[in-house]
Amino acid sequence: MTSDYFHFLSLIGVAFFAISGTLMGHEKNIGGFGVVVVGSVTALGGGTLRDVLLNQPVFWITQPDYLYATYGAIFIAVIFIRHLPDVSNYYMLLVDAIGMAIFNIVGIEKSLLEGTTMLVAITMGMTTGIFGGLMRDVICREVPLVMRDELYSTACFCGGLTYAGFFLLNVSYIWCIVGSLFITVFLRLGALHWGWQPNIFRKRTPRK
Amino acid sequence: MTSDYFHFLSLIGVAFFAISGTLMGHEKNIGGFGVVVVGSVTALGGGTLRDVLLNQPVFWITQPDYLYATYGAIFIAVIFIRHLPDVSNYYMLLVDAIGMAIFNIVGIEKSLLEGTTMLVAITMGMTTGIFGGLMRDVICREVPLVMRDELYSTACFCGGLTYAGFFLLNVSYIWCIVGSLFITVFLRLGALHWGWQPNIFRKRTPRK
Amino acid sequence: MTSDYFHFLSLIGVAFFAISGTLMGHEKNIGGFGVVVVGSVTALGGGTLRDVLLNQPVFWITQPDYLYATYGAIFIAVIFIRHLPDVSNYYMLLVDAIGMAIFNIVGIEKSLLEGTTMLVAITMGMTTGIFGGLMRDVICREVPLVMRDELYSTACFCGGLTYAGFFLLNVSYIWCIVGSLFITVFLRLGALHWGWQPNIFRKRTPRK
Repeated sequence: MTSDYFHFLSLIGVAFFAISGTLMGHEKNIGGFGVVVVGSVTALGGGTLRDVLLNQPVFWITQPDYLYATYGAIFIAVIFIRHLPDVSNYYMLLVDAIGMAIFNIVGIEKSLLEGTTMLVAITMGMTTGIFGGLMRDVICREVPLVMRDELYSTACFCGGLTYAGFFLLNVSYIWCIVGSLFITVFLRLGALHWGWQPNIFRKRTPRK
Repeated sequence: MTSDYFHFLSLIGVAFFAISGTLMGHEKNIGGFGVVVVGSVTALGGGTLRDVLLNQPVFWITQPDYLYATYGAIFIAVIFIRHLPDVSNYYMLLVDAIGMAIFNIVGIEKSLLEGTTMLVAITMGMTTGIFGGLMRDVICREVPLVMRDELYSTACFCGGLTYAGFFLLNVSYIWCIVGSLFITVFLRLGALHWGWQPNIFRKRTPRK
Repeated sequence: MTSDYFHFLSLIGVAFFAISGTLMGHEKNIGGFGVVVVGSVTALGGGTLRDVLLNQPVFWITQPDYLYATYGAIFIAVIFIRHLPDVSNYYMLLVDAIGMAIFNIVGIEKSLLEGTTMLVAITMGMTTGIFGGLMRDVICREVPLVMRDELYSTACFCGGLTYAGFFLLNVSYIWCIVGSLFITVFLRLGALHWGWQPNIFRKRTPRK
């Protein structure tokens, strides 16, 4: 029942991340199966790390429909990009934000199901949401999104807090999901659009 | 019986990847044990990831002869390179291609033994073949071979398809192995030599 | 009894690595939760890999006090850095050296407890000591310390040899630990201070 929700959410998240990897592959002009490799690592990396850490069977090995979703999304994205080769990098960031928001929730939920504490669950949600995109950026030699000042991991953390708060208040699953998704995507896109920046510390600019 | 084949193949693959890591370490002028670290990560990285994903005991922990093969190959490679310091980067690519071809097969076989579907097995073969070299390139801050347009992952995938095809046609193990090795190495070296390039998508070159 | 030693040592090691990650995050001007992500990956990365390889439950999932140590150390480091924004990169290297020395020992010990051979245990100690810092450097796009000529992995290996030697000579735990810590930190800081360099191979400088 609720596991159907999460299966469906995971499939969507996997597809979004696969598209973000394909867009990055296009940006970087990778040819041949390299695009499939980058797309798959992005789509499956975060969830794989989550399952390995929780000592669970890896999701795409036991349920191959995640592989179909990954390869299908890459295939469709490639077709689209061939017809729209001027696609902007903004779509990569958008698709990545939604994928991160979804995987954050799925990671928290799966972690709680294994009986971890809420702190571990929120950490696991961020791991699941962030690592696929981080591996994509490292492989493609981009500055990881996590390193940039655009509320990336902060949005992920706030989405996790929202989910945890609603969950502890016994709000129904669907609203936990909607609330968390909304907060994460809103903060992230807001930061991209209006240039919100966190300011934990700044190096002093050298005096003249 | 057939497990002897694969043990032997794995040892050879480990040694080839260890040499490729050592050559890269030489290229990058790493001193001291850094070379051993890069060589080991290259040699053991792909297979370790495979075993972790399949939830199997990690191969070099339960069978330390893989560690002897790794350290032995690094030691011999270091001796050789000290006498031939002008060794070309081409040998690194050659050794890497053979290692990838071997690990691809070993990964597919080990995955099928665990009862996965063929699609998962081919994905696992590519993971095993590609990740060691990918970690080497990331640590050494090189453009990963997977990102370059030289049929790297494409060769790996075609080698996997060959193995899967022969396997499903009930061809004897030895020919599955020989056929897959031949296709992978032929495509990869052919691409390096004759400049074959796949063309999934190209960004439009800006009009003048 | 001895497990208390190692629990305590691990907590210290985790805190040191968390601080090194935070210092690197400051160096790189990361804002918001990105610092927490880099700090956590540095603190927990090596030990997580060790537990996954040994097929043990991941230490920070079963014992959340490691998460408190990580987040606490990051929090305190952030407070300090805000008041001392001109903190030098030398402190990052110092803190990293101590963290590596501690995790090296913890990795060897945990590996021996699982019944591995001494060669596997030393490899596992290096893995535990080096990988957290390596992931920090890769995410932050720095030249990994392991690649530089400053006795990094060499110090780690010599510390491991010291521990193994003392252990096989039945020296009491406390001296195994003190000896190994001393050798690792001494070699590493000596190399940083006096410029000791290993010389496994050097490319011939082009003749003029």
